Amino acid sequence: MTYCLGMLLESGLILMADTRTNAGVDNFSTFRKLHVLADGPDRQIYAATAGSLSVSQSVISSLQEDQLASETREHGRSLSEAPTMFRVAQLVGEAVERVGATVGAALERSHIDASTELLVGGRIGDGPLKLYLVYSIGNFIECTPDVPFLQIGETKYGRPILDRALRYETPLAPAVKMGCLSFDSTMKSNLGVAMPIDLLVLPADRAQPGISRRIERGDRYFEALADRWAELIYEAATGLPSPPWMDD
Amino acid sequence: MTYCLGMLLESGLILMADTRTNAGVDNFSTFRKLHVLADGPDRQIYAATAGSLSVSQSVISSLQEDQLASETREHGRSLSEAPTMFRVAQLVGEAVERVGATVGAALERSHIDASTELLVGGRIGDGPLKLYLVYSIGNFIECTPDVPFLQIGETKYGRPILDRALRYETPLAPAVKMGCLSFDSTMKSNLGVAMPIDLLVLPADRAQPGISRRIERGDRYFEALADRWAELIYEAATGLPSPPWMDD
Repeated sequence: MTYCLGMLLESGLILMADTRTNAGVDNFSTFRKLHVLADGPDRQIYAATAGSLSVSQSVISSLQEDQLASETREHGRSLSEAPTMFRVAQLVGEAVERVGATVGAALERSHIDASTELLVGGRIGDGPLKLYLVYSIGNFIECTPDVPFLQIGETKYGRPILDRALRYETPLAPAVKMGCLSFDSTMKSNLGVAMPIDLLVLPADRAQPGISRRIERGDRYFEALADRWAELIYEAATGLPSPPWMDD
Repeated sequence: MTYCLGMLLESGLILMADTRTNAGVDNFSTFRKLHVLADGPDRQIYAATAGSLSVSQSVISSLQEDQLASETREHGRSLSEAPTMFRVAQLVGEAVERVGATVGAALERSHIDASTELLVGGRIGDGPLKLYLVYSIGNFIECTPDVPFLQIGETKYGRPILDRALRYETPLAPAVKMGCLSFDSTMKSNLGVAMPIDLLVLPADRAQPGISRRIERGDRYFEALADRWAELIYEAATGLPSPPWMDD
C-alpha cells in the first residue's frame, strides 16, 4: 500500500509520499515514491506514485529516458520540451499507457494487479503551479481550488482531516502540518503506509526557496504532533455531550 | 454504499446502520439495514447488512422463514432454537452461503457484485452479549475487547475516531456519541452513506431497558454534535504548531 497527497494552494504546491512497499505482508521494504522529473531554472516537475512498484518505476524511468533521448535526437515527447504542465500530464499519461501495454499486460496475465496512479505537479516557465492525478489508463484530472488536494493509494483514513481543516487559502507551513496529520491517521489504521515520509514544497512566490525533506521515523516534530493530536481528538470526543435521550 | 458499525463494550452492545441504498448514482433510496432477528424474553438477536440489497434481504428473509418453519416442523436450523450466539453466527453464515449459491450466482453471471456482509449481535438466555462479522462466503469473526468494534460497508472514513477515542470501558451513552461522530465523518466523505441512522442499544445490565431509535435527518442532537465536532477539529488542527523547519 501507499499514501501520496498533493495540495495545490494559493501559497504553493506540496507533495507528500510515504515510502513503504510490500508484496504480501511478509515482504516489506522502503522505496522512494516521490520523484523529481525536472528541476531546472525554467521547470520544476515532480511526481508521486502509487500502485504496482514495477509499473510505476518503469513509468518514471521511461519519462527520464525520453528526456535524455530528447537531448540527442527525438523531439516532442520529452518533459524538458513540454510547453505547459498540461502537456506534461499528457506525456505522463502516455507513458502510463505504454508501460501498461507491456509490463502491465504481462502482470495481468499472471493475475497480478498492475494498476498505478500518479500525482504530477510543478511549474513551467512563467506558468502557474499545477497538480494532476494521472489514472491507471493514462487519463487525468486537474486539482482546482474547490477541493485543493488530490490523493492516491490508501486515501480514505487521511481524508476527513483534510476535508475539515485544509482550505485553498491555508499557508504552506500549516498545510504541511495538516498533511502530517493526514499521514498520521492513515498510518494508525493501515500498516501498509509507513515512515519515512518524503516532502516537497514549491512556494507560489518564486522568491521563496523550495523545500525537499525526508521526515524520518522518530522525527521529533512529527511524533510530538501525532501525540498531541491524539490527545486533542480524545479530549474533544470525550468532552462533547452524549445523546440527551440516553442516560449517562 | 452502506456503513454499519457494531460496538461490543463492557457496558453493552450497540449497532448502528445508515439507510441509504443506491444502484449507480442516479437511483438512491432509503432501506432499513438494521434488522431484528429475534426479540423474545430469552433471546435478542439483531443484524445489520451491507452489500447487495437483494442478497442481504434474501438472507434476512430466509432466516426469518426458517424461524417460522421451525415452529411447525423443521428443527435445528432456526435462530429461535439456537443455544448460543456462536450457533446463531453459524446459521447466518449458512444462510449467506445458500443465498450466495442461488441469487448471488445469478448476479455474478451478469457481472453484478453479489457480495454481502453482516454484523450479527445479541444475547441468548444467560449467555454473554456477542458480536460477529459474517463475511460474504459465510465465514465469520467475533468482536473482542482489544478492538471493541466491527464495521462493514464504507469503513475507512469513520475508523480513525474509533481507533482514537473508543475503549472497551466506554459507557453506552458516550459510545453512541462516538458512533455518531464516526457516521458523521463517513457521511461527509461519501454520499453513498446517509441519514437516517438506525440505532439499537442492548445494555449488558439486564435491568436497563434497550433502546431502538431512528436518528432522522435534521436530528437536533446529531446536527449540533456534527457542527461542534467540525469546529473542534478545525480549532485543534489549526492550533497545533507548524513544522519548525518551515517559516510561518
